[in-house]
Amino acid sequence: MKIGVLGGDGYCGWATALHLSAQGHTVAVVDNFVRRQWDHELGVQTLTPIRTMPERLRAWKQASGLSIDSYTGDICDYEFLAEFMRDFEPEAVVHFAEQRSAPFSMIDRKHAVGTQTNNVVGTLNLLFALKEFEPDCHLIKLGTMGEYGTPNIDIEEGYITIEHNGRKDVLPFPKQPGSFYHLSKVHDSHNIMFACRIWGLRATDLNQGVVYGTVTRETEMNEALINRFDYDEVFGTVLNRFCAQAAVGHPLTVYGKGGQTRGFLDIRDTVRCIELACLNPAQRGECRVYNQFTEQFSVLDLAQLVRTAAKELGLTVQIDHLPDPRVESEHHYYNAKHSKLIDLGLKPHYLSDALLDSLVNIAIRYKDGIDPSMFLPRVNWRSAVNDRKKTQDAAAAGMVSF
Amino acid sequence: MKIGVLGGDGYCGWATALHLSAQGHTVAVVDNFVRRQWDHELGVQTLTPIRTMPERLRAWKQASGLSIDSYTGDICDYEFLAEFMRDFEPEAVVHFAEQRSAPFSMIDRKHAVGTQTNNVVGTLNLLFALKEFEPDCHLIKLGTMGEYGTPNIDIEEGYITIEHNGRKDVLPFPKQPGSFYHLSKVHDSHNIMFACRIWGLRATDLNQGVVYGTVTRETEMNEALINRFDYDEVFGTVLNRFCAQAAVGHPLTVYGKGGQTRGFLDIRDTVRCIELACLNPAQRGECRVYNQFTEQFSVLDLAQLVRTAAKELGLTVQIDHLPDPRVESEHHYYNAKHSKLIDLGLKPHYLSDALLDSLVNIAIRYKDGIDPSMFLPRVNWRSAVNDRKKTQDAAAAGMVSF
Repeated sequence: MKIGVLGGDGYCGWATALHLSAQGHTVAVVDNFVRRQWDHELGVQTLTPIRTMPERLRAWKQASGLSIDSYTGDICDYEFLAEFMRDFEPEAVVHFAEQRSAPFSMIDRKHAVGTQTNNVVGTLNLLFALKEFEPDCHLIKLGTMGEYGTPNIDIEEGYITIEHNGRKDVLPFPKQPGSFYHLSKVHDSHNIMFACRIWGLRATDLNQGVVYGTVTRETEMNEALINRFDYDEVFGTVLNRFCAQAAVGHPLTVYGKGGQTRGFLDIRDTVRCIELACLNPAQRGECRVYNQFTEQFSVLDLAQLVRTAAKELGLTVQIDHLPDPRVESEHHYYNAKHSKLIDLGLKPHYLSDALLDSLVNIAIRYKDGIDPSMFLPRVNWRSAVNDRKKTQDAAAAGMVSF
Repeated sequence: MKIGVLGGDGYCGWATALHLSAQGHTVAVVDNFVRRQWDHELGVQTLTPIRTMPERLRAWKQASGLSIDSYTGDICDYEFLAEFMRDFEPEAVVHFAEQRSAPFSMIDRKHAVGTQTNNVVGTLNLLFALKEFEPDCHLIKLGTMGEYGTPNIDIEEGYITIEHNGRKDVLPFPKQPGSFYHLSKVHDSHNIMFACRIWGLRATDLNQGVVYGTVTRETEMNEALINRFDYDEVFGTVLNRFCAQAAVGHPLTVYGKGGQTRGFLDIRDTVRCIELACLNPAQRGECRVYNQFTEQFSVLDLAQLVRTAAKELGLTVQIDHLPDPRVESEHHYYNAKHSKLIDLGLKPHYLSDALLDSLVNIAIRYKDGIDPSMFLPRVNWRSAVNDRKKTQDAAAAGMVSF
C-alpha cells in the first residue's frame, strides 16, 4: 500500500514510517522540520542523538534494503501539499504533521494562535487535497485522548448513544479539552467528521494516549535510526521525563497530588495501531474514532513504577510533588474504552515490561546529556500571556515559527 | 455600561450598537468593514441603501443626541485590539466580528480556511485581550443554532446532563455543524469555554437562530440609519430572500422538500437579547450558553407564510422547489429549548406580525433595486473546490480578503 506519513520526522512519525516500510508498504515521509526548529527556540534537545533526514533514510536503506521517499514542505502551503498528492498518489495518509505539545500552546498568545492555525489549516488543506486529488485515500489522523478531558462518565470511542426526554441518538462524544493544543485537535475532529459526511471521504481519527518509549524493532537496527527521546517540560511526555530524572538521581516531578489519570501506550503499539488502521480502512463517508492506548495510570502510579524499576537497577529515586502548573483535576473518575484496536488485532506491550526493557536503560545510556534544568515547568496555564513583557520578548525573539 | 460592539457595522452589529446607545449605554463600534468588501467581491449588495460609518454616526447624533465611538481595525491584529481595550476599557464586549455566511465558507478552500482562520484567531485574540486588559469584562459572543445540527433528541441550551453506565455528568451538548462557517463557531465555543475555566473569564455564548427583518425602533428614526437587507444566496438569510422574491413576483426558492426546520428571530429581538445579556452578566469563570431564537419553522412553512402575507398585499407568489445545494436532512426531528432569554425578560416579536409590519413592505419599497440573478444558489456543498479551475480563478481574482 502507498502510504504518506505527514510529520514523518517526528517522534511517532519516524517510528511509524520505518515500521510501515518494514511491513512492505511504499512509504513517503512529508515534513518541514519545524519540530527541530522549536527545539532550538526553546533551548532543549532530544536526549538521543537523532540524525538528519537524509542520514536517516540512507541508514534505513543500508539496514533494510528499503527506500523511503521524502518530501520537504509545509502542509499549510496548499500548493506543496497538492504537488505531493499528485506526485505520490497515496492510498493512505497518516497525519502526524501538527504542533503536538500542550505546554507549547500555553506559552503565550502567539503560541496558542500559532498552534491552532497550524493544526487547523494543515488539516483543512489535507481534507481539500483528498477531496480534490484522492477522494478514495484513507485519512488516518492522530487525535488525542486529551480531547475528552475527564468527564464523570465512561469515555466511549468517539461517539455516544444519548437517551434524552424519551428519544435517542448516536452523537459525537462531548469534548472538554485542557489546552489550546488539545482544543486544536477537537477542532480538527469536527472538521474531519464534516468532510467525511459531505464529501464521502474516509477517515480514522485515532485518539492517542500519552506515548512512552523510544525503541522499536526498526529503530534498533542501526544507531542512525534512533528515535527522539524528549524529556523537557514542553515536549517531553511524563514517563520519559520520569525515566530521565531517575537516571540522574533527580526527584520525579509529580504535578500536584498526581491523581491525574490518563491512557498510555508504548511507541511499539503506536506503530502497530497505525498499521492496523491502514490495513482495515474506513468506508467511504465514514469517520471512525478509535481510542489508541493500552493502559490507564495516574501520574503518581507512574512515578511509583519508575521508582520500583530504578531500584532494580540499583538507583534510589525520590518523588517530589510540585504545584500543578496546569488547570486540571488532581483526582477524578476516569474510565476510557479502548477495545476497537484490540479487536483489529493489537497485542499490547505493557508498561511493566517496557520500563526495564528499554525506558530506564535508554535514559541511563545517554544520561551524560541530561540537563536537569529542562525538567522543571516554566509554562503555567493560569498565567499564559499574563505577563505582557514575556510575550513581547518572545515575539521579538521570533520564538514562533510556524 | 461601557459596551464595545465588535463587528458594529454589520447587520446585527449596527442594530445592536444603536439599541444599546439608545438605552443609555456608552457604546463603541469596532469594525474593519471587510463585510462591505465581500459584497464587492461577490458582486452583490444590500437592498437598502446603507451609509458609511461616519454618515451613520452623524445621523445617530442628530437623531438621538447620542455619540457612538468608532474604532477601525481588524481584531485578528492583536496590537489593534489591545489598543482598543486600553483606550475604551469596556465592561462588556459584544462579539459579532466574524465571517457569518455558511455558503461563503463553502465556496472553495480559500474561503473555508479564511473563514475558520478569521473567526478562530479573532476570538482567540479577544480572549487573550480580555485576560490581559479587562479580565472582569463580560464577553457576549454570537454563536449559532447551526452548531447543534439536527440531532434526533431535544437540543438543550449549551449543556446536557448525560446518564451513562450508571454515572452522570453535565457536559457540552454534542455538536454536528453543517458548514465550515458553522464549524468555526463550534471551535470558538470550545475555546471560550476553556478560557473561562482556566482564567476565570465571564462569557455568554448566544447560539442565535436565523435572523429576519431590518427595522428596529432606532434604525427607523432616520433613513441614514437604515440597516442592511441582504437577499442574495450567500449573505441573505432565507426569509429576507423570500420577501425580496415576493416583491418582484419571483417564485420563492425552497431548497429540496423544505422540511429543514430551524429557529428564527426578529432583529428587534436580537438587539433586546444582547441588552438582556449585558444587563445580567455571567459570573467570573462561567461560560453560559443561551439559545437565541423565538420560533421554529420549516423552510416550507416560511414560504407559505410569505405567500399568505404577500396575498394580503395583492401579490401572487409561487413556490419553487430547487435541488438542495447543501448537505442536510430535508425532513428531521427538531425541538430546541429557548427559555433562558425569556426568563431574563425577552418579549418576542412573532413572525406573523413582522411579516406585514415590515418585511414584505421593506422589500416592496426598494424593489427597483432587486436583482433576481442574486436569488439562485451558486455555491454547492458537494462540489466545494471540486472544480480546481474555479478555485484558481477565485484566488487569482483575489476574492478572499480577510
